[in-house]
Amino acid sequence: VTPDSPLRFGRGGLAEFAGSFEYPGGRAFLVTSEEVARVHGAAIRGAIGSRLLAEIRIDDREEKKTLAAVASILDRAVEAGLRRDDFVVAFGGGVVSDVAGFAAAVLLRGIQWYAVPTTLLAMADASIGGKTAVDHPAGKNLIGAFHSPSGVLIDPDLLDTLPDRQFRSGLVEIYKALLVGDAKGAEAFLGGLEAAARSRDADAPLLAAIRVKEAIVGRDPLERGERRVLNFGHTLGHAIEAFGGYRRFTHGEAVAVGMAVAGVLSAERAGLDAALASEIRRELAAFAKDAVEGADPASPAILRALDLDKKASSRGRAAVLLKAPGKPVLVEDLGPESWLEGLRRVRDGIVL
Amino acid sequence: VTPDSPLRFGRGGLAEFAGSFEYPGGRAFLVTSEEVARVHGAAIRGAIGSRLLAEIRIDDREEKKTLAAVASILDRAVEAGLRRDDFVVAFGGGVVSDVAGFAAAVLLRGIQWYAVPTTLLAMADASIGGKTAVDHPAGKNLIGAFHSPSGVLIDPDLLDTLPDRQFRSGLVEIYKALLVGDAKGAEAFLGGLEAAARSRDADAPLLAAIRVKEAIVGRDPLERGERRVLNFGHTLGHAIEAFGGYRRFTHGEAVAVGMAVAGVLSAERAGLDAALASEIRRELAAFAKDAVEGADPASPAILRALDLDKKASSRGRAAVLLKAPGKPVLVEDLGPESWLEGLRRVRDGIVL
Repeated sequence: VTPDSPLRFGRGGLAEFAGSFEYPGGRAFLVTSEEVARVHGAAIRGAIGSRLLAEIRIDDREEKKTLAAVASILDRAVEAGLRRDDFVVAFGGGVVSDVAGFAAAVLLRGIQWYAVPTTLLAMADASIGGKTAVDHPAGKNLIGAFHSPSGVLIDPDLLDTLPDRQFRSGLVEIYKALLVGDAKGAEAFLGGLEAAARSRDADAPLLAAIRVKEAIVGRDPLERGERRVLNFGHTLGHAIEAFGGYRRFTHGEAVAVGMAVAGVLSAERAGLDAALASEIRRELAAFAKDAVEGADPASPAILRALDLDKKASSRGRAAVLLKAPGKPVLVEDLGPESWLEGLRRVRDGIVL
Repeated sequence: VTPDSPLRFGRGGLAEFAGSFEYPGGRAFLVTSEEVARVHGAAIRGAIGSRLLAEIRIDDREEKKTLAAVASILDRAVEAGLRRDDFVVAFGGGVVSDVAGFAAAVLLRGIQWYAVPTTLLAMADASIGGKTAVDHPAGKNLIGAFHSPSGVLIDPDLLDTLPDRQFRSGLVEIYKALLVGDAKGAEAFLGGLEAAARSRDADAPLLAAIRVKEAIVGRDPLERGERRVLNFGHTLGHAIEAFGGYRRFTHGEAVAVGMAVAGVLSAERAGLDAALASEIRRELAAFAKDAVEGADPASPAILRALDLDKKASSRGRAAVLLKAPGKPVLVEDLGPESWLEGLRRVRDGIVL
């Protein structure tokens, strides 16, 4: 594991891809999706230039983030004659980078890869930190590897064509990173979710969020301890995602609810200022209104999802709360009932 | 990668398995084969004791060393509720440890594993050094990971039930390790292949061979350079194995021919003493007589296998020759014709 992947950040950066990193000697094996290739295919192929070995397009819906998708990449790579000094370029959202990064981790026992994320969520989260994985019917991300990209290129211009709902989803992960790791950044961003969603400009908080993640991952690349704080809002968030069949709510919508609830529980149990928890709850609940209303705490399905997530979880059993922005704490797993009670209170607008 | 896996070596050691290593806190997920479980199942289950979480038996024929076999292990592990602090125990030959070790590498992004090899080949080779992999239709070991076991337990008593032909196969890998890394051990063992096969006692050369492999792997865990010397005899050996459909010849038989040829080429190109090369050739050719006679250098199939191996190889392009025992050299890949010409000379009994 080499947790620090060189980062190139800047609008228009995609065109400079070929000169951006110290690549190995070989050729580029491009992994992308139909949708991304349709919009940005010419740009990435132009940026890679003559070193392009082959291209494969995978189905990038979450339900296709499977070992079978990895196998199809492996087949295509072997068929193309991939060698040890070739490298993978993952060009797409989080599913593409999770699957392509994992394929790179196991091809010839590990070749280099580069991440060029095309969604705000992947820019803020999936492409940073070397976690790669696919889902198993019994749980998300149960099969994978720690395999850091040798470079990450982030060009916010690529977001111009991103659907609004996806942009909003990414903003939630940025908000999360700032809350757990950058008190000043969080203060500056607080109350700004809707404005950023409308202006479609999140360059500054995005870069700050990436720096938070890089710093935490650098100190704990294998998620033995501190890295778990990045799961703030994700215990309940994952359960809401699963409850919605991974289609009804985006990752960000589900995590926004999870964060609102984690904030409320933080005020109760970890000393987070109640007025601040209330402000966070209000902003996130408004930002992800449909998810707040859709995630019914009385539904047996959501309890089942929480139980299943807990049983199958590879994220450890601790829950993440906040003492203050930038001061996360790990507490003993709270249990499904605490999360559901918190969800009831968020829906009812109660903090303490 | 932690290349130095603690080693426990000794007859009767299996019964002490539970006390042999510093295990993680969880439970043991046992991966073995039908055949091994039939003969030694009670012994390993007794040795693991109350920490046994679940057991899976895989088909351990080389043609079943596939991603599908890994997937079946992953399914069973997830179904059994495997957690991060559980560990895999690979109990069997090389296919079991390659497949189980790879499964451990990708379960929950990597959990610990322990190797308890039951064949001489796996004791001398597969269980040491952290290479795990499965085959792809286009080539051997193309998909895998470097993931060192957290402990290797070698109990030569387990070999009492090993078929003769398998015992002989393992002796060849021992011979190889001594030739490339232990001049004194090689001198002591030279001429002793048949005697060791008959006495069924190879404890001393086995331990010496393991020490050679540990030392080389410790200096080059990811096979960037020196570790390639362990491929001595394997370029042609793999082609002969493939030519025989992985059924006609054992790994050791094919590699014995590959080593005899590499010895002859070493005399010609790397300065190996011709009398010594002749002695090595004679001993190996007699030891693997059927493979020498069966591997027809005029057959288009063997040339195809050499070409395919070269194209699909994940082992790098250098060939390994010997200046002297313990003094391997890497030379530019010799090309199929050199290997076939060498094979002709070995069959005809010509050295220089």
